[in-house]
Amino acid sequence: MNEVEWSDTEKEIAKEAFNKAYVREVNNLIKEVRELANSISELNHLWQLHDFLSARRHEIDGKYDYRDSVLIFVFARLVNEGLLDIKELEGLNKDKLIKIAALARMQNFT
Amino acid sequence: MNEVEWSDTEKEIAKEAFNKAYVREVNNLIKEVRELANSISELNHLWQLHDFLSARRHEIDGKYDYRDSVLIFVFARLVNEGLLDIKELEGLNKDKLIKIAALARMQNFT
Repeated sequence: MNEVEWSDTEKEIAKEAFNKAYVREVNNLIKEVRELANSISELNHLWQLHDFLSARRHEIDGKYDYRDSVLIFVFARLVNEGLLDIKELEGLNKDKLIKIAALARMQNFT
Repeated sequence: MNEVEWSDTEKEIAKEAFNKAYVREVNNLIKEVRELANSISELNHLWQLHDFLSARRHEIDGKYDYRDSVLIFVFARLVNEGLLDIKELEGLNKDKLIKIAALARMQNFT
């Protein structure tokens, strides 16, 4: 299996890792929104919360893309953002892991 | 002074009532958003909160219109929604008060 092709086992590992990152992302966001909501004391803060949710919604909608062709990049971003540990991808082909780890060290994913 | 013209005294009364309603509206909304935020347990609830804020932002932006020509209707709506008591408009010309009270009894302001 190379970077582009995914075996059934790899797909299983990828799916599980993907879901883990997603759950962490959602839980982090829920926590953040609760904290923001509890610190609101004026109308502007409400609209700041609204702007924040607009941006995060847009980001999350685009981020969790499960197409094989982009999955390496999605995982690199999730590792970069601390939502996934590279160890949670163990079992993937070595080339994939090396590429994900290298890409994850880059900045400016968004 | 008739329904359209506003004396300086009426303008003072209007401004104070307008601000009172606005503060109540904002405080109600802050309370509601805090409650919603604290009941969030999944991503869909976050997007529901986002949709709710989008709708309320649009509504509030259009609602607090301080132009003399529409102020009668704005006050009628605020009374209708319980954000203002008709007594808080005492001192306005009688014709204005009658019109506001009559309009406030109507439904479907939005």
